[in-house]
Amino acid sequence: MTRKIEVGVLGATGMVGQQFIARLARHPWFDVTWFAASERSEGKPYASAAPWRLSTPMPEACRRVTVDACVPGRGPKVVFSALDAAAADQIEPQFAAAGHVVLSNARSFRMDPLVPLLIPEVNADHLCVLADQKKQKAWTGALVTNPNCSTIVLTSALAPLRQFGIRSVIVSTMQAVSGAGYPGVPSLDILGNVVPFIGGEEEKMESETLKILGSNGGRTPYPAVVSAHTNRVPVIDGHTMTVSIAFESAPETGEVAEALRTFRGRPQELNLPTAPDPPILVTDQPNRPQPRLDAELGDGMAISVGRIRACPVLSTKFVALGHNTIRGAAGASILNAELMQAEGIL
Amino acid sequence: MTRKIEVGVLGATGMVGQQFIARLARHPWFDVTWFAASERSEGKPYASAAPWRLSTPMPEACRRVTVDACVPGRGPKVVFSALDAAAADQIEPQFAAAGHVVLSNARSFRMDPLVPLLIPEVNADHLCVLADQKKQKAWTGALVTNPNCSTIVLTSALAPLRQFGIRSVIVSTMQAVSGAGYPGVPSLDILGNVVPFIGGEEEKMESETLKILGSNGGRTPYPAVVSAHTNRVPVIDGHTMTVSIAFESAPETGEVAEALRTFRGRPQELNLPTAPDPPILVTDQPNRPQPRLDAELGDGMAISVGRIRACPVLSTKFVALGHNTIRGAAGASILNAELMQAEGIL
Amino acid sequence: MTRKIEVGVLGATGMVGQQFIARLARHPWFDVTWFAASERSEGKPYASAAPWRLSTPMPEACRRVTVDACVPGRGPKVVFSALDAAAADQIEPQFAAAGHVVLSNARSFRMDPLVPLLIPEVNADHLCVLADQKKQKAWTGALVTNPNCSTIVLTSALAPLRQFGIRSVIVSTMQAVSGAGYPGVPSLDILGNVVPFIGGEEEKMESETLKILGSNGGRTPYPAVVSAHTNRVPVIDGHTMTVSIAFESAPETGEVAEALRTFRGRPQELNLPTAPDPPILVTDQPNRPQPRLDAELGDGMAISVGRIRACPVLSTKFVALGHNTIRGAAGASILNAELMQAEGIL
Amino acid sequence: MTRKIEVGVLGATGMVGQQFIARLARHPWFDVTWFAASERSEGKPYASAAPWRLSTPMPEACRRVTVDACVPGRGPKVVFSALDAAAADQIEPQFAAAGHVVLSNARSFRMDPLVPLLIPEVNADHLCVLADQKKQKAWTGALVTNPNCSTIVLTSALAPLRQFGIRSVIVSTMQAVSGAGYPGVPSLDILGNVVPFIGGEEEKMESETLKILGSNGGRTPYPAVVSAHTNRVPVIDGHTMTVSIAFESAPETGEVAEALRTFRGRPQELNLPTAPDPPILVTDQPNRPQPRLDAELGDGMAISVGRIRACPVLSTKFVALGHNTIRGAAGASILNAELMQAEGIL
Repeated sequence: MTRKIEVGVLGATGMVGQQFIARLARHPWFDVTWFAASERSEGKPYASAAPWRLSTPMPEACRRVTVDACVPGRGPKVVFSALDAAAADQIEPQFAAAGHVVLSNARSFRMDPLVPLLIPEVNADHLCVLADQKKQKAWTGALVTNPNCSTIVLTSALAPLRQFGIRSVIVSTMQAVSGAGYPGVPSLDILGNVVPFIGGEEEKMESETLKILGSNGGRTPYPAVVSAHTNRVPVIDGHTMTVSIAFESAPETGEVAEALRTFRGRPQELNLPTAPDPPILVTDQPNRPQPRLDAELGDGMAISVGRIRACPVLSTKFVALGHNTIRGAAGASILNAELMQAEGIL
Repeated sequence: MTRKIEVGVLGATGMVGQQFIARLARHPWFDVTWFAASERSEGKPYASAAPWRLSTPMPEACRRVTVDACVPGRGPKVVFSALDAAAADQIEPQFAAAGHVVLSNARSFRMDPLVPLLIPEVNADHLCVLADQKKQKAWTGALVTNPNCSTIVLTSALAPLRQFGIRSVIVSTMQAVSGAGYPGVPSLDILGNVVPFIGGEEEKMESETLKILGSNGGRTPYPAVVSAHTNRVPVIDGHTMTVSIAFESAPETGEVAEALRTFRGRPQELNLPTAPDPPILVTDQPNRPQPRLDAELGDGMAISVGRIRACPVLSTKFVALGHNTIRGAAGASILNAELMQAEGIL
Repeated sequence: MTRKIEVGVLGATGMVGQQFIARLARHPWFDVTWFAASERSEGKPYASAAPWRLSTPMPEACRRVTVDACVPGRGPKVVFSALDAAAADQIEPQFAAAGHVVLSNARSFRMDPLVPLLIPEVNADHLCVLADQKKQKAWTGALVTNPNCSTIVLTSALAPLRQFGIRSVIVSTMQAVSGAGYPGVPSLDILGNVVPFIGGEEEKMESETLKILGSNGGRTPYPAVVSAHTNRVPVIDGHTMTVSIAFESAPETGEVAEALRTFRGRPQELNLPTAPDPPILVTDQPNRPQPRLDAELGDGMAISVGRIRACPVLSTKFVALGHNTIRGAAGASILNAELMQAEGIL
Repeated sequence: MTRKIEVGVLGATGMVGQQFIARLARHPWFDVTWFAASERSEGKPYASAAPWRLSTPMPEACRRVTVDACVPGRGPKVVFSALDAAAADQIEPQFAAAGHVVLSNARSFRMDPLVPLLIPEVNADHLCVLADQKKQKAWTGALVTNPNCSTIVLTSALAPLRQFGIRSVIVSTMQAVSGAGYPGVPSLDILGNVVPFIGGEEEKMESETLKILGSNGGRTPYPAVVSAHTNRVPVIDGHTMTVSIAFESAPETGEVAEALRTFRGRPQELNLPTAPDPPILVTDQPNRPQPRLDAELGDGMAISVGRIRACPVLSTKFVALGHNTIRGAAGASILNAELMQAEGIL
């Protein structure tokens, strides 16, 4: 690539926005030059507008960038959206209409049949929906979304197993507090505690999964049933989940492990810069994966799966883990952009 | 009751032993007079032999009691066993043979068909096995066990639902570190982390549950299948678990809630001193039960159930919670003893 | 006492307010009948207005009490104030002017020379200021405050040592998150972390301590210097602090321990219902006090001191600990009220 | 440097040993080829002998290295020692006698007047002791130590302030659990808790500091007094400490900040590969440094200092922070080796 592609970030000052900035600042293809946020931040240098909360320091080059408002047409063609759903509802379609390619982490349009809900390893072909999107939405740009941070872990671990015919899935999550943003979960609620409820999360896991695994660009959902229990635990980063699956066929545990271990997707074929290879790390250690030890693997982009064994009620059970603010948020959108660039549709 | 019954504790210096001492020291029926432990502690005053780790202070009256060795025949007739399995394997049968009634929290004999595995609310009738036990073991005393700390939470929540015909259960636990004793789980393993494995725990939940819910004194297991995922989380006390159940019949969510809410067992009928009433607390709050807020309810003896709702894969799902070192250990054995006393077989 | 005294709580729905309600609901002298809060809560039953966050359940009798607005003259004569400083600035003087005796936990008037800043064990005589308060403020009621939650721990441990002539104190705190209220400290800030700053806290410890230990009703500060380092740590309840003290005289470590151990104040003389006896628990265990094990001692009202030893730089050093939301907030105000009642000035 | 220097690690399988391996595996000057541990591990491949506990994965090249026993003469000339004190007492002198240059993290010989206790930024000149060491110990090799993990943070922050004449220091630490090794601190002791005691730690901070800051190769201690309070808190990595200092002269806060900010030592002059530059990061943010955000700065080798302000009792106070298993252990020994190599005495 001879020249870097200029990109912007909508909602650059929040926690997901900071993850975008941190990762884009060292990206080989993209050059993050436009930082947009709410009017309150407009005109301020990024260093003072964004209360930095990552354990890696703020990239030096970003400190003095002046924050702009989220006005369509101002920034570069490609913009990543770290907006919350309330803001994304309004702003993302305006950007897409104005010719921007919006790569969104917000939940607002994930289930819109005209918007790809993308995990590049799983359903790269769903980008085909963009033709209809352009036509029916009358947008000169485009809008592509990535799934909820729990969904992406589950679905990545399910995708290689479609060959066995997935009939049903029961998943119980143990989710990190960073998934709730900042200030997010009060410490009094979660220190030494478990909160067995996350608003809207179970519904997202139960519906998004089937769209992503589905056919016809996601318009025909995958014919399975998912039941989710979602829980918050006192962990900073990394969503861990126990998964039980019923299959049509009756694969041996070893076949399931092999399918996960050998799985590769379009990002690995295309050798995209942030694609983890392999995308799924299968561990034989009896007490892994664990968020503190495994969430950062593959630079935060790999999904870890362990404890693959027979489930006496359904067919197979295991533990899956992924980094919720990297693979489950900013990193996901960036990989979507890499895929689109490599496929020539950015 | 005119005079208190003298009781002893085997393994009095460990963490479960401390829980026994703390609870027996304020018990209306029992007078804990005999503290037995390993030879290392023999002859020492309890205050110096037991490194106290509970947040309630050591009962004053116990500080100067001299610790004895675990020698059958020495202590009172009724002894509670807080021994670990390796010690219990040898010592508990010796005590039962020597005429003691042993109320054990150890796993050693739980699955022995001649030993009741008791939750007084659930299977008080399993005490009928003691007749055969006496005969076939040629013991002049008796041995009664309580379940594993996770099993007791799950099984208590399942028992009222037998009327709907339980076919299968998938449970995923989030267990407190106190369940592993002291020193137990290293802080480096669990601070800000999840460990998705607890040795032997899944097997115990899958087998003990069916014995307890079974018939013929537990010798005919309940005809269901249980699949357990067990996980350790950074919580001090209280095991939380998500539960999905398939029923023969198709009860409404409201019927399931009502069955749990109105459930009463033999301890409530007999008005036993430490029996929680009701035994199961059903909450309508959307984000409960939580270990920090709910584990101590019913003086640590109540099981809390919340978020009762339909499971799209099986029939019904909910969250259950109980205090693992009280309802799941010392408190369980003490309630067993109360039941036996009230039934005239202590 | 033949009849209970009716009392009210200003700011009854917040976290400190909940602590007031929980403790007053089981108080032998006081009958909490009036619950006041912001207009948003007015007219609602307490159970729905107050999102209960304590691990002890909401007292049954309080659930249906209708919440009133904070309007002077409406409630009983005696009111406890759990208001935050912004609200207390306005509302507390209005209540005192209207004839209420206000027992406040807010910081607003602590340093007012006409307002007693009271720890009943330490400076019960500072109530003498109330005569001047009445005169100069032209209030028909009265206003009495208790110190900041860190100050009360430090000052309680210093008071018995005034006999040795305190010259200077360096204190470094490790404070619980409950001290910041709800939602308070975001979990992302404090999980597995230390925040070495609490806004305004060091100033309060450095000034309040000298007023409380001072003479002339607190109008002449104690002639010592205090230097505070305040830190937030991931603990739910209990402020721990390391303390180094320079004395005029040169007491032996044993003399310091003895002075703390034998200390008794006016609440112990008067045998007030919630007065801990002794007020200061001196421990010889090498690794105590610890918040999880010791904060609840004396029903949360005792201060624990341990590790008393020589300080090579100043004279003596030790560790002190107290429960910040009980001894350091609601419990402190209630003990103030008990003292005033026993002294005949309520 | 044309060829890498072969080095070995004594105690390679423990937690500090793993830190050595992880850091040496990517070192530009050293090639870690010899892994020594207790006899139990001898002959095993490193991957199975060392239960890896770091969040960065085990270096691939190390997995198959066969672990050797700690026998002098077997490994390369330069060996790093991650032995615990009991083992180091015996083994380190044997290695030094046999011609090895031992760079030790153990406490065993730190206070030996013939052994340099080194922080390269602070007392590089103490290497002069090695001449006497060779002579008087009759060793053909050498032994160089680094300080305790708390001492190194404190002393690094004090060293630039010697120009103001340090008279006394009161330090109160909040130390991470990784400082206690594995299994180390039981989770039941530290979850949601503070333990205000770490065996031997206060003595080490009070004595080691003065040797390091001292003259004559550390044989004349620095003429100041240090008083330490050491506490364990639920943090994984990073020791935070509050520090109050009395100076001979009366520097302004700004002068103290400037002295820290502009400080450079021999490693920065020599541009040693793992020397942080600057060695001390002074922050103006009001609530920093914090272990979760700042411990990893400078690749874990920088010391962070913040909240520099006047101390009303002594002269100046601030907060200091460093990574205890990197700057406070393995990284310290490695920097010592780099210094010796650059100075031509390895």
